[in-house]
Amino acid sequence: MRLSNDLTSLAHASSQDPDFMVSIATGGYFPARVLRSFLKKPSVLGGSKTRNLPMQSIGLALYEEVAGTSAQVMGKDVIRTQWLDEGLFRLPTPQHPTTLLGKNIVLIDDVDDSRTTLEYAYKELLKDVQAGLAALTPEERQSLPPTRFATFVIHNKVKASGKKGHLPLLPNQSSSSTLESQPVIDGIGQGVWYYAANGQTGDVWIDYPWESDNIEEFNRLAALARELGVNQVC
Amino acid sequence: MRLSNDLTSLAHASSQDPDFMVSIATGGYFPARVLRSFLKKPSVLGGSKTRNLPMQSIGLALYEEVAGTSAQVMGKDVIRTQWLDEGLFRLPTPQHPTTLLGKNIVLIDDVDDSRTTLEYAYKELLKDVQAGLAALTPEERQSLPPTRFATFVIHNKVKASGKKGHLPLLPNQSSSSTLESQPVIDGIGQGVWYYAANGQTGDVWIDYPWESDNIEEFNRLAALARELGVNQVC
Repeated sequence: MRLSNDLTSLAHASSQDPDFMVSIATGGYFPARVLRSFLKKPSVLGGSKTRNLPMQSIGLALYEEVAGTSAQVMGKDVIRTQWLDEGLFRLPTPQHPTTLLGKNIVLIDDVDDSRTTLEYAYKELLKDVQAGLAALTPEERQSLPPTRFATFVIHNKVKASGKKGHLPLLPNQSSSSTLESQPVIDGIGQGVWYYAANGQTGDVWIDYPWESDNIEEFNRLAALARELGVNQVC
Repeated sequence: MRLSNDLTSLAHASSQDPDFMVSIATGGYFPARVLRSFLKKPSVLGGSKTRNLPMQSIGLALYEEVAGTSAQVMGKDVIRTQWLDEGLFRLPTPQHPTTLLGKNIVLIDDVDDSRTTLEYAYKELLKDVQAGLAALTPEERQSLPPTRFATFVIHNKVKASGKKGHLPLLPNQSSSSTLESQPVIDGIGQGVWYYAANGQTGDVWIDYPWESDNIEEFNRLAALARELGVNQVC
């Protein structure tokens, strides 16, 4: 699992031209931090400098216990532990210069398993963007480029029985699908661009190196598994 | 730089007994994600299960360009790009079961360089906690354990001319300093517990692996530097 080298879909990712990153805590922390180095833009301060994209974090818990969880809820309902400041869904001001409106937003997580978390994140952000755009005057709305959504994960787990969560995926593997051809309704690009850096995997549990509490043992087992050709996700 | 193995101060970290993690984006993303695996607590749902600590992310930019930055500001002023929901500074309710009040909070970043970011994060969180506690009735305040602060970084950079930022560090390397002996005023543990996983480094620029856009070249150079005994931070 060599994330930085195996970002085979990054060329595709740049076709959506992301300019706002939203990392889903805590699975998205590591891929978001790495991806950020690949998505730099030219500095607005001039010269040959580059700048990082704005990044915000949201906290969503599906499989884990948070305060107030019951055993029944775990793995079924998404619990929101952190969300974005509502100022991000208004037009920028000198005091609050950052906005999601008119941005190409990319949602980042480690693995697209049941797709429940990604569906929740997309739908809830979409709602907030829609409300933000609805609060603008027609002139303000017209001054903005479309707000578009993409998701970026390391692995997409293939489920024999299908995914529980649903995203209106755009066919971004096709060279004919471009930003220009993406339908835009009420200022919002319809559908979701989708990037799985390391592609598809079977329906297996994935241990990422940054989840290990003994990295030497992790590396030993990973090398052994490679040698034996077992437990390989890609 | 083997984070998971070299967490020599984790034994100390557990002496502050952290129960709320705040990662400082984006430097803190990777160490926070790894540290989290080491700080699990017993599940409140019973059995032998464990649960992760609650984690929130704050966004602070010191050295980098964010919307609205001028070249003059970069490297001097801390710019707040994301903060915590104000509900986190109130008593927990069934709807908002998470609070920072009465918690042992650990602030996580990659490197303690000028200490400017950490000072900002600590002082601003302290202010919010103080305001939150001040809004309670005396009975409510008394029902809470003290709120305590710690910082966790991978490296502490030693500056010949001293740090620009200041933290009231507690002498946590001493076995005589315990939670019980920490002074508590108005419900807040005085001072900051301090943990630098990989210890001190000289005043050098550190390239962490997760900042690299070419991990194979990074690894080649890192191996070469080890062989030549140059550019070693610890």
